[in-house]
Amino acid sequence: MERKFYLEDIPLDEAWAAFRAALEAAGQWQPLEAETVPLGQANGRVTAAAVWARLSSPHYHAAAMDGYAVRAADTVGAREGAALTFALLEAGERGSGGEGEPKIASAPVPVPPFSPAPLPPSPTAQPVNTGQPLPPWANAVIMIEHVQPVALPDGRSGISIRAAVPPWHHVRPMGEDMVATELVLPANHRLRPVDLGALAGSGHATVSVYRRPRVAIIPTGSELVTVDAGEPPPGRIIEYNSLVLAAQVESWGGLATRRPITPDDFAAIRAAVLAAAPDHDLILLNAGSSAGSEDYTAHVVESLGRLLVHGVAVRPGHPVVLGTVEMTNDELRMTNEEEHAELVVRRRTRRNPLSRVTPIIGIPGYPVSAALTGEIFVEPLLAQWQGQRPHQPATLEGNLTRKLVSPTGDEEFARVVVGRVGDRNTVTPISRGAGVITSLVRADGIVRVPRFSEGHDAGAPVTVHLYRDPRDIARAIVAIGSHDLTLDLMAQFLAARHDGLRLVSANVGSLSGLVALRRGEAHLAGSHLLDLETGEYNLSYIRRYLPGWEIALVSLVGREQGWMVSPGNPLGLTGWADATRPDVSLVNRQRGAGTRVLLDYELGKLGIDPAAVRGYEREEYTHLAVAAAVASGAADAGLGIRAAARALHLDFVPLAREAYELVIPRAHYESERLRPLLDLLADAEFRAAVAAMPGYDITGMGDMRLIVA
Amino acid sequence: MERKFYLEDIPLDEAWAAFRAALEAAGQWQPLEAETVPLGQANGRVTAAAVWARLSSPHYHAAAMDGYAVRAADTVGAREGAALTFALLEAGERGSGGEGEPKIASAPVPVPPFSPAPLPPSPTAQPVNTGQPLPPWANAVIMIEHVQPVALPDGRSGISIRAAVPPWHHVRPMGEDMVATELVLPANHRLRPVDLGALAGSGHATVSVYRRPRVAIIPTGSELVTVDAGEPPPGRIIEYNSLVLAAQVESWGGLATRRPITPDDFAAIRAAVLAAAPDHDLILLNAGSSAGSEDYTAHVVESLGRLLVHGVAVRPGHPVVLGTVEMTNDELRMTNEEEHAELVVRRRTRRNPLSRVTPIIGIPGYPVSAALTGEIFVEPLLAQWQGQRPHQPATLEGNLTRKLVSPTGDEEFARVVVGRVGDRNTVTPISRGAGVITSLVRADGIVRVPRFSEGHDAGAPVTVHLYRDPRDIARAIVAIGSHDLTLDLMAQFLAARHDGLRLVSANVGSLSGLVALRRGEAHLAGSHLLDLETGEYNLSYIRRYLPGWEIALVSLVGREQGWMVSPGNPLGLTGWADATRPDVSLVNRQRGAGTRVLLDYELGKLGIDPAAVRGYEREEYTHLAVAAAVASGAADAGLGIRAAARALHLDFVPLAREAYELVIPRAHYESERLRPLLDLLADAEFRAAVAAMPGYDITGMGDMRLIVA
Repeated sequence: MERKFYLEDIPLDEAWAAFRAALEAAGQWQPLEAETVPLGQANGRVTAAAVWARLSSPHYHAAAMDGYAVRAADTVGAREGAALTFALLEAGERGSGGEGEPKIASAPVPVPPFSPAPLPPSPTAQPVNTGQPLPPWANAVIMIEHVQPVALPDGRSGISIRAAVPPWHHVRPMGEDMVATELVLPANHRLRPVDLGALAGSGHATVSVYRRPRVAIIPTGSELVTVDAGEPPPGRIIEYNSLVLAAQVESWGGLATRRPITPDDFAAIRAAVLAAAPDHDLILLNAGSSAGSEDYTAHVVESLGRLLVHGVAVRPGHPVVLGTVEMTNDELRMTNEEEHAELVVRRRTRRNPLSRVTPIIGIPGYPVSAALTGEIFVEPLLAQWQGQRPHQPATLEGNLTRKLVSPTGDEEFARVVVGRVGDRNTVTPISRGAGVITSLVRADGIVRVPRFSEGHDAGAPVTVHLYRDPRDIARAIVAIGSHDLTLDLMAQFLAARHDGLRLVSANVGSLSGLVALRRGEAHLAGSHLLDLETGEYNLSYIRRYLPGWEIALVSLVGREQGWMVSPGNPLGLTGWADATRPDVSLVNRQRGAGTRVLLDYELGKLGIDPAAVRGYEREEYTHLAVAAAVASGAADAGLGIRAAARALHLDFVPLAREAYELVIPRAHYESERLRPLLDLLADAEFRAAVAAMPGYDITGMGDMRLIVA
Repeated sequence: MERKFYLEDIPLDEAWAAFRAALEAAGQWQPLEAETVPLGQANGRVTAAAVWARLSSPHYHAAAMDGYAVRAADTVGAREGAALTFALLEAGERGSGGEGEPKIASAPVPVPPFSPAPLPPSPTAQPVNTGQPLPPWANAVIMIEHVQPVALPDGRSGISIRAAVPPWHHVRPMGEDMVATELVLPANHRLRPVDLGALAGSGHATVSVYRRPRVAIIPTGSELVTVDAGEPPPGRIIEYNSLVLAAQVESWGGLATRRPITPDDFAAIRAAVLAAAPDHDLILLNAGSSAGSEDYTAHVVESLGRLLVHGVAVRPGHPVVLGTVEMTNDELRMTNEEEHAELVVRRRTRRNPLSRVTPIIGIPGYPVSAALTGEIFVEPLLAQWQGQRPHQPATLEGNLTRKLVSPTGDEEFARVVVGRVGDRNTVTPISRGAGVITSLVRADGIVRVPRFSEGHDAGAPVTVHLYRDPRDIARAIVAIGSHDLTLDLMAQFLAARHDGLRLVSANVGSLSGLVALRRGEAHLAGSHLLDLETGEYNLSYIRRYLPGWEIALVSLVGREQGWMVSPGNPLGLTGWADATRPDVSLVNRQRGAGTRVLLDYELGKLGIDPAAVRGYEREEYTHLAVAAAVASGAADAGLGIRAAARALHLDFVPLAREAYELVIPRAHYESERLRPLLDLLADAEFRAAVAAMPGYDITGMGDMRLIVA
């Protein structure tokens, strides 16, 4: 640790090139060695070599119908009114390939191809069933439905036919499906169920496939606790990046090993890497990949092999380490740290060509950075090792609903949600930090903003690299506006009742919802905007923001608003005027939120200047976020709904009842797309679920007023 | 078995409706029960209930940067030239939430939310590292890079700052990611790696998911042998439908059990079903689902429960059985067959509401029918049991390259290959039987032709339900024309060298290849057409079929043509004239094939009438198929190339050398798309592989003549 490490800013393609060059030099930029697996375990694996047919399929001329095998030449001349008669071959007279009754042979005799049995006299027929071998003298099959049984003059059994058949009629000739030596499947082919059938049918019981890459995942950090350890104290963090990375690795065809959490200690992390290296193709060290005093990843990599890249110009995910552990397996098993250190010095002066090279990736700690680093660096490597191209997500073109600002130094991977409203795809950046894993959960895709771009303006066309099937995006219902817990319940019911139909909601406040409707970015907006003059909800705002529009204004719920306060209401809040108490610190909602409008309305009635309210400037975007601020002690009170207070075990001081409505342009209201959502409003189970929430009133739910604004 | 069964013709939607109604009545048309699994095993599973956050994330206000925690109000007024100084809090003075050095707390103390430590005097700062809890009195973090260490007048340590910060600057507020009680994931959601992170981060160590459906697959048929039993004798067939069905079931989220092969015997099949029913959610019985004398599936289903559907109007896959086994588990464990029979009679008169209902599907025996039946009936059922929609394949619009004839009584699932040539998608039906599994392996998708339609004309627009990523189709190279083994090698090399790039070739003969070029259906055509007058290859045909076109005529190989005969050449063939020997039966190539043109040319030179050649009318489409006909004894000789004879261990009587060339319209020749293929012609490894094939000559490979036809 004599050396100080600085975080660099290496462009993504250069970082990849350095990593790839090191792997190529070590002979590791190629598929892993092959292993032979039984077909029953081969689905989804990748062929390591082309497969050629060992047997033909069928491996004999087979009857394709139940009926009678004949020589086609013997049937010439048969027609209606001129039937031809065939003698049935008795069992003793037969060549190989048939049985006494037209049934599947239970112990068929092989046909020696170049010593056929003596030819029976013409015209002769022999019963055969579908799949049975044709007798060597026959070359066609007549369907059982097209013959008449007859008795021959000599007393033997026979059949008569009334139509001629061409050669090879109703016969599956040998090799119809596959001819021995023919190509069945190419190399580098990911096996599907039907491929297994073709392999088996051509005589293969096993198949040679690439070995699955083994990946060790080492979580590091003294602050980390496992998810099953119960609720962690402040300062402790539940470790879950290893879960996400392991699931990624398995999804991409690898075998993941999750190692125990290692504390922030150079020797401990180094020991964990040494322990993992002999048995794994790749090591993921998470985190400690930045350049802080407790960030040991770069030091550890440097001490065991080569530090190739430290810091990549991408965001999120900047503090990435790419490197290699370079030691023979014997060396890796050394336990003495000083021996190792000496070894590293020797190595630097004289490269040992026999050393084992194990790539190692230092993965940033923030969960979004970690998951994206998996996609950017781990997936292409696992694909290469399995003879596959890197995953290319499907793309979709759309237009930004708001400005996407990007730092010019980094290539940005901006998470976005995509809505299909009318004939446009609207693309909305989720502007949340790298610590917000739900931003990836919610994301429909990624917009990549190149280095040296400052981003895109609102309305700009962008390409989205999708996480979801574009058809799921196409049918989703988009709600932008005020947040209410009823929307969460709606999302639940829609998904359950309509095959995963999604209600995509963006919580931007009532007023911004109306603006989104005007811009054609949403199908509906939840709104509870109180008119400061009339005391009426929503109508005047709709007239102002959507003039001339035909709007269906649909009642959803009535709900209580009030102070959310600590349990026991220790400051004794009772009314609106408490907002100005010098010993009370509030948390507020963002501008344009109906709850904030309500607060402003009531403060205005009392003649209170917002500047006199402590905490008026602190903004949160949802009721629950306000409740969380109170629950954590960051504020004494916040205006919000009773259900949010209850959810976080807060007390509630009711102050007002308000109407929460859905604002829906008429065309959307009448569209098939919104039918499932509107039907819910009359659904007994849904109504009961809403009514069960504290402070909610479903009187009038579903009532609609059609207005021309 | 007193009852005779007839195969019906029930439309697909009616068959499904009957099956679904029976499952609904039994309470089985719904997701399976839930089970709780650790997150490490949950990737890809489907949530059985909505998941709500148990903890907030972060569960405390956390520093988002390494630096110093302060009260934002204390920083007001700081600017360049007017630094403000903060005293550093000593360890003893601190509230909870920090440690002596700016490092991750190794044993943090919980913050009791409503009893904060006494406020330290202003202005005070406390070192914090990223992720650490903020002290309760602080509400902002100043980055370490933005402070200067200073000594205070009283000798204590301090820092000075030159800029104010707003409240909550560089702080991740509690609940920034998720607030306790908030919705994390809805029900019926297939879990992805990032979802596992959100679940763990919100305090869940396990998740409730639907149980995986258990499916028993019972192969039946006295003619069946297992794939590992070695080369089967004629009449015996390698059983592989169970492999395909099991892999399908696993791909669709189920757990498949492959049962041993059961002979065609009513009692044995019935016993196998009885043995499987108690432990499985679904039984697949394959085959015996038709109405022949050895088809027991319908009888078995009738004897154990209800036969709902026998025969569905689809092709391939007509002989499908849908039904249920209806018995209690105790009854299923009865071993006495007569007891069972009696039970069934009792059942018919008095339905026992407690009986266990196990759906059973009788699956047709032909492999294409079996795989399609899996897609049509098994996949939607497994999806329903896991709370998912049935799979909807991506679709693509294209135009048929030739007529698609369909039987009017059945809905047809026609397998097709799709090529992207210019700006058109060309759709070519693979007109092979239900026994040809390679038709499904090769298929890019399915065109569904409804009942009562007679099919579509050449050129008609059709919708293809894709088996492949449309991008793989878009980049494939399409070769239509004569078959040569060099094309198979090319396909190998292209896939290996260019990330799975596909060479899609249709073997229709040289002449049809030129026609396909003219219609814009291919990028290139392999051709070896001998001009009967000039004795020159290809040129005159190109002038006739592609008049006015600019064509790049690229030499591929020279190759030997000759008689392929049984080992030892038992009939002693030596020259062209042997074609007319009365003791020699030939197999020929199809009209338009270069090999046939060559035969006609040579017969013409000798003045031989084709009618005098035995077997002249028997046509095969590839060299290997001709070789297979000779190897199986179906013919004595066929004209073809030495490599094909060698592949099937035949003898070869050389007769001619010919030029096999690639005919490529100039625009395609110069396109990026064909670059990888043309580059191969100069690739040493590829040339060596071609030269190693017997009878092949690579002199001139890659030479190009540009002609205006």
